[in-house]
Formats: sequence, structure tokens, C-alpha cells
Amino acid sequence: MKALAETVIDDTLQRIRALVGDKGYITAADAMEPHLVEWRGLWRGQARAVVKPADTAEVAEVVKLCAEAGIPIVPQGGNTSLVGGSVPYEDFDGIILSLARMNRVRAIDRMNYTMTVEAGCVLADLQRIAEENDRFFPLSLAAEGSCMIGGNLSTNAGGVNVLRYGNTRELVLGLEVALPDGTVWEGLRGLRKDNTGYDLKHLFVGAEGTLGIVTAAVLKLFPKPTRRETAMVAISGPDAAIELLARARAASADGVTSFELMPRICFDFVLAHIADTVDPLPQRYDWHVLLELSSTSPEDDGLAEKLQNLLEKAAEDGLVLDAAIAQNQAQANAMWKLRETVSEAQKPEGASIKHDVSVPVSRVPEFLRRADEAVAKAVPGIRVVGFGHVGDGNIHYNLSVPKGGDNQAFLARWEEINEIVHDIVHDMGGSISAEHGLGRLKREEITRYKSQTEMELMRKIKGLIDPKGIMNPGKVL
Amino acid sequence: MKALAETVIDDTLQRIRALVGDKGYITAADAMEPHLVEWRGLWRGQARAVVKPADTAEVAEVVKLCAEAGIPIVPQGGNTSLVGGSVPYEDFDGIILSLARMNRVRAIDRMNYTMTVEAGCVLADLQRIAEENDRFFPLSLAAEGSCMIGGNLSTNAGGVNVLRYGNTRELVLGLEVALPDGTVWEGLRGLRKDNTGYDLKHLFVGAEGTLGIVTAAVLKLFPKPTRRETAMVAISGPDAAIELLARARAASADGVTSFELMPRICFDFVLAHIADTVDPLPQRYDWHVLLELSSTSPEDDGLAEKLQNLLEKAAEDGLVLDAAIAQNQAQANAMWKLRETVSEAQKPEGASIKHDVSVPVSRVPEFLRRADEAVAKAVPGIRVVGFGHVGDGNIHYNLSVPKGGDNQAFLARWEEINEIVHDIVHDMGGSISAEHGLGRLKREEITRYKSQTEMELMRKIKGLIDPKGIMNPGKVL
Repeated sequence: MKALAETVIDDTLQRIRALVGDKGYITAADAMEPHLVEWRGLWRGQARAVVKPADTAEVAEVVKLCAEAGIPIVPQGGNTSLVGGSVPYEDFDGIILSLARMNRVRAIDRMNYTMTVEAGCVLADLQRIAEENDRFFPLSLAAEGSCMIGGNLSTNAGGVNVLRYGNTRELVLGLEVALPDGTVWEGLRGLRKDNTGYDLKHLFVGAEGTLGIVTAAVLKLFPKPTRRETAMVAISGPDAAIELLARARAASADGVTSFELMPRICFDFVLAHIADTVDPLPQRYDWHVLLELSSTSPEDDGLAEKLQNLLEKAAEDGLVLDAAIAQNQAQANAMWKLRETVSEAQKPEGASIKHDVSVPVSRVPEFLRRADEAVAKAVPGIRVVGFGHVGDGNIHYNLSVPKGGDNQAFLARWEEINEIVHDIVHDMGGSISAEHGLGRLKREEITRYKSQTEMELMRKIKGLIDPKGIMNPGKVL
Repeated sequence: MKALAETVIDDTLQRIRALVGDKGYITAADAMEPHLVEWRGLWRGQARAVVKPADTAEVAEVVKLCAEAGIPIVPQGGNTSLVGGSVPYEDFDGIILSLARMNRVRAIDRMNYTMTVEAGCVLADLQRIAEENDRFFPLSLAAEGSCMIGGNLSTNAGGVNVLRYGNTRELVLGLEVALPDGTVWEGLRGLRKDNTGYDLKHLFVGAEGTLGIVTAAVLKLFPKPTRRETAMVAISGPDAAIELLARARAASADGVTSFELMPRICFDFVLAHIADTVDPLPQRYDWHVLLELSSTSPEDDGLAEKLQNLLEKAAEDGLVLDAAIAQNQAQANAMWKLRETVSEAQKPEGASIKHDVSVPVSRVPEFLRRADEAVAKAVPGIRVVGFGHVGDGNIHYNLSVPKGGDNQAFLARWEEINEIVHDIVHDMGGSISAEHGLGRLKREEITRYKSQTEMELMRKIKGLIDPKGIMNPGKVL
């Protein structure tokens, strides 16, 4: 039986090779390497081949052949997953299906504020193409130079503009998906309103490639922001951040595009380890918010005055202790550099245990109090680097080893610390994976927090749409 | 067998009555009447009882009992469906489950900009409660005084604020749903970011009660708009409307909350038949847009000037022929009255055949040209009243009988005319039900336009989640 199965598999792979051509069929070790290894080196998987179809028809045919032969598939975009969702397991015996060659923008409809793009388009390219068409595509995140939109869709990526524009899920109007049996669901609609039955696209967005392969999408575009006001604001604490956020939303016609909380330790790490960084404030403060307001108005609509008034009033009320308002783009960039290099700056400080959690925005201060106390009790001297998209209730709650502590001993407690933090998150109605997904990393852990009913529904849907279990096996569920 | 089945049903109904009490169990003809009849009188169904549970536990128990006995259920909110989704069929032999008694607001979290509400809350009450808490719940539609949020969620209701705030789907963060087997999915999360598996809530939103009963939801709130600028703008035609919309979005920091297209015939009908209406413009024009900009800024942020500049520039460029800007709320209300009474004003003009369609916003002018030509060819003298939410690509394409024509002869061609209009819509990548759903009215017709693949996926999902087919039978699918 084994021999027969191998014959079938070999025969299928031959047919796939003939279909996609040598250019789309990779087996050389060095060429396969970047597809097999998680980008931080945390996991290394294997595969029989990396297949790169040129268009949707080829994707569908490859999936159909694999389905018939029972060959599992790991769909892959830019391979920048933070939870191991985009690389195969160590004992994987199927193929990686890379969307990298499908990188065309099929259409731009300026007056419909949409663009129709293929899954392999790199996010930064899409941002640029929107800009060239006098439009704005708001999805923006650290990996944008290499991540692909198919992966962004499959993981419902978040990023720095969610507060104003929503997650990737909110940015998509239509999808084209190769289903696990090789048929194609052609749902590439560019409609703002369509109430004709179940909304299938939301099943595939965020499914991490376990229900099919997103091959193309219709994305929403927006008017291009013409003005931005950026400020680094010293605040009295996390409670003040939540109050300031509500005031900023009201004051700016809901034009708050970013609202990032940063405790002192972020500044200390970045200023110590990252070249060309400087504290924009004249003295040390314990808590900061990086605040950005935007407007699309072609005329000056008083955004700078709004920010000024907001901060002055908040200072009178004791929420704001000090603030630096960027006077030009270079100053704004310098402020953003403080925020964007936090993870990098954490590395020289030793091992860290990370969490990507969310709670209701109103409960962020309570979460920080409870979690800080709990982890300090577990590991005296632990250094809490809890920062991030507080406007979405999303905290990157990263914990650095105590100063001079033993890295290995600290990392050995990864799961224990995860459980402490995630139990608090769960108790507060939060999420243990706010924007990174479940992938391989959290598929076991999630069963601790989701109800039986919800896990059962998810498993039934997986069984329904992918009955042979060939799509990204061992991820999510 | 029949007798035995009837015994089981009787026994189950007895148990349901004991569970919900006399207050929650209605069989008197007069009390059942409003639940059995479609509000315009288009359909009249029957049911064994109208059951009104007091809380989620009761809903779940009723569903469980019905599932065991095979008794079908029509879930019902305010019974304002426009497609017969909320009333039972003529030969229905199950129960209506009304959510009307479940009308508590369970929680308001001002700083999280959310409220947790039960399915039976009337939409207008929720708008008011948000307002009292210095927040804004943007869902707004004609039936808001009696429709219930559970129905809004189950139909993914649209309305007049979709352009800025999205459909109901975009306004919900979490759901509580009684599944067809009587278990409850507790998904009442108030999170802006949560990437932990398949997004189940989007399956139930817009499913028109065919996959389960929405019992509660966490809704998004927004900063309260403090300023509104309303204008009735005479434009050169539909093409000018699309260009003006793009300019308005850019000029107002994406603060266009309404953008409603109205041809001359709307004005003629309304001015002739509706008391206390007046044309705000000094002369007759062929095409109009009712334009509303909003801002939440507590200070004057130049919204009026933005509108003025926008219109002046558009007039220079030949897009705008004339405009009246409301100088106070009374004038704004008078303009809105012209828009909101169009359907009512159509009635005295004789029979009408209606369509709730959408196309990409950029293609609205093309749709109007093609459809106008096609229906005039089919029925010479037909009067096209094509108006509505052009900012969402959503046209209420309503057709009045030719002047002095035979109403019955006209209505006899309903399906033929539907097909002419919907074929054009479909050819343009549009939707034959933009905001009203499929319900009973369009469940057959949709199979003409959706792909086999999509219909099959929808049927499989229905079969998976409601294997006994007891939830709102004969609707959607």
C-alpha cells in the first residue's frame, strides 16, 4: 500500500510540475530554504516541493490534483507569520504552495475606491500603487516590505491603523478562493452592500489557509490623508491614556489614526540600544502615548490647533504632563522610530517572553495592573515591556529577563508565564492572540480558553470545507 | 405515526408553555395577528403559537425542546422585513419565537465605545441610549421606531449612514447565539482585535435566522457628531454625482455621512402628494444629491466653509448647477423629508415594481442608463424612480406604472421586469438585494445569479449548523 501511495504521489507531483513548469516547481535545497524556515529560525519544516502557480487556474488545478492524491498543502505568502502559520511541520510530506508569482493588480476603480489584487502582491507595493492613484490603502505593519496581501487576508492582519480603518477583515469587499477540492469560489465583488445570503468571505479571512487558498481580493481604498499631526505625549498613567483617547476621538472628528502606549522602559531600551534615537521630551516620564491625528482635507482644517487645544485641556485636567508636537516629517519619523524599534531594542537586554493580547480598551489599565503584579510575583525583577496599540485594546505584553538573570532559566518558564498572563486576559474577556493568529504556536493553548461549543463549531466547519484535511494541516485547529 | 407525532408536539408545546409562562406563550388569534402578517399585508402565515422567552436561557431551552420534537421555528424581531423573512409560510406548523421581551441593555462601556444589548431592543431606543451616554450608534433606517436590533443583525441592515459607518455587520464586535440544537454560543466579546480562529459571528450576521437565533450583541459606539451640514445640490447628472462624492470624501476628512441621489421625478411625486414639502431650489433641475457632512469636533472646524468651497469648485467645473445649504435644523429636516417620503409619494401614482440593487459606485451612471433604456423598451411610458444611497452604490430602482396605465396589467409583469433589471445588475457585478436580504421573496431568484459553488457552500453550511432544518425554514435557501 505504501508503495502504491508513493507511486500516486510521484505521479501527481509530475503532473503538477508539467502544469506549472520548471519556473513554478522548486526542489533545489537552497531555493526551498526560505520557504521551509520560519523567518526568526524558530521552526524548520520540510516539503516535497515548493509550487508557485502563475494564476488562479493553476492554483485550482494544483489543489485538485493534491486533493485527489491526498497530498497536503501549506499555502504561503511572504512567510512573515509570527505564530508559525506559514511554514510546514518537521514531518510534513506535502507541498508548499507559494502565491509569490501571482502579484498582479488586476484593476483599480478610483471612483469605487477599490482595487482588485492577487494574493502575491507585497503590501508595500499595494500602498504605493494606491498612492499613485490618489488613494490610500491603510493596512500598515512592520513586515509590509515583504508580507503579501494573501497572507494579510488569511491572518486578518492588524497593524498601526486599525483604530481608524479596522483590521484587514474590514478592508476587503470580495474574495476569490481556491477551495480544498480545487473548485474556485469567485466572490470578487466590489460592493458596499450585498445582502444575498451567508457572508462567505469572512469565513476565509483569518482562517490562516486552513479552509482554502485566497488567490485574489477586492480591497477598499480611502481618500488620501493630506495632513498628519504627530505628538509624543507624557501622561500620568494608563488611565489617563484611555481618557485622552476618548477626548482625541471626539476632538478630531474621529481622526485618530494611531494611539500607541509606551512605558518608560521602552524609551530606556531604545535610547540605550538603537542608534540615532532621542527622547523628544526634556525630562524623564513614566508613561507616554504616541498620538497621530490625520485629515484628508485639502485645505488647512485646523488639525494642529485641535491637537494643541486637546493637549492643553488635558494638561489642565492632569492627564497630560508634557508633550512634544512634531514640527515636520523628520521629527514625526523620529518619534515613530522610538515606537517601531522597541522589539529590536529588547534583544540586547536578554531573553524575552512575548504576548500579543487584547482586552476591552476601557480595561487596559486594569489588565496592566493585574498582569504586572502577577508576573512580578512569579519572577521577581522581571521587566515588563507592555506597549502597543492601546487604541485597539491590543498590548504587546513582552517580558524581559531580570537584569543579569539567566536567559535559559527564564525561557524555560515560557508556558508558565503565558498561562499567568493569558488567564488574566481571558478573565477580562480578552483575546490571547489579538493580531498574530493561532498558527502552530497557539493551537493547543486556545482550547484552554474557547468554549467547547466554539471549538466544536470551528472543527465542524473545517471538516465541512476541507474534509480530507489537506489545507495547512496542524494549524489553527 | 401521525397521531404519535402530534402527541409529541403537543407535549413539547406544553413544556414550552410551562417554561415561559402564560405571558410568554401566545395563542389568542388577535394577539398572534401582528406576528403572522407581513406588515404591508403581502403575506399571511400561520403558527401553533408565538413564544416570547424572557432571557437567553429560555430561548435556548425552547430551541432545544423544538429540536428534539422536530418543531420548526421562525425567529422574529420587529417584523419589518421587506422580503418576507420574518413571517411564517401559509402552511407552517411550528412556532414563532419572538425576541420582543428580551429588550435589556446589559452594559454600556463608554471608554470601550461599546454597548451590550439584547436582541429585542428597538433600534431607536438604542440610538437614544447611546446619545444619553454621549455616544453615537449610527445605524439608522426607516423602520427604526419598531425594528429590533436582533433583526437588524440577522439581516445585516443598511440604512442612511452606511457610507461613513458601514452596514450592521461592521457595527458588531460580539454575538450571543442560540444554535439550532439549543446550545448557546457565547461570543459576546467587546474586542477590536481578536485573531483566534474562524470568525463565527459573521456567519450569523445576515443569515436571516436560518442558522440560529441571535439573542444579544456587543455593538460599536462612536463619538457623537456635533456638527452637520446638509445641502440639496442640483447636479448635471449621475456622472457628476460620482465625481462630487469623491471630492466630498476628500474635502471633508471622509466625513460624508449621507449622499442620496434623487432624480426630478422624486421631487415631482413628493411635492404633489406629501403635505408641507417644498423644493429648496429656485428652479427645476433634473438631478439632485442630498449631501450631508458631519464632524464630531467640539470646536468649529470649518465644516460649513469646506462644504461651500466644495460646491463652488464643483460649480466652476460644471458638476454642480445650483445648491441650497440648510441654514438650520428645520431646513435640513425639510430636505430630508423630500428624500424620506419618496416611497410614500409613489403610492398615489399607481402600482410600482421595486428593486433594491447595488453595483460598484463608479458604475451607477452606467447602470441607470442601461436599466432605464431596457425597462422603457419593455414598458413604454414606464416611470423610473431610481433613487437612494448612491454613496454605497445602492439604488432603490422603483418603477411606477405609465401615467394612466393599468395597475394590474403592470404588476402582472413583476417577474419579467425584475429579470430585466437584475440581469443588468448581475452583468455589472452587482447585487439583487443590496440591503433587504433574500427572505422568502428572492430565495428562488438568487439561484439564477449565484454560482453553483456559492449556492453549494451556503447549503452545506446550513446543513451543518441546522441539520434538522428547523430554523426559519424556506428562507434564504
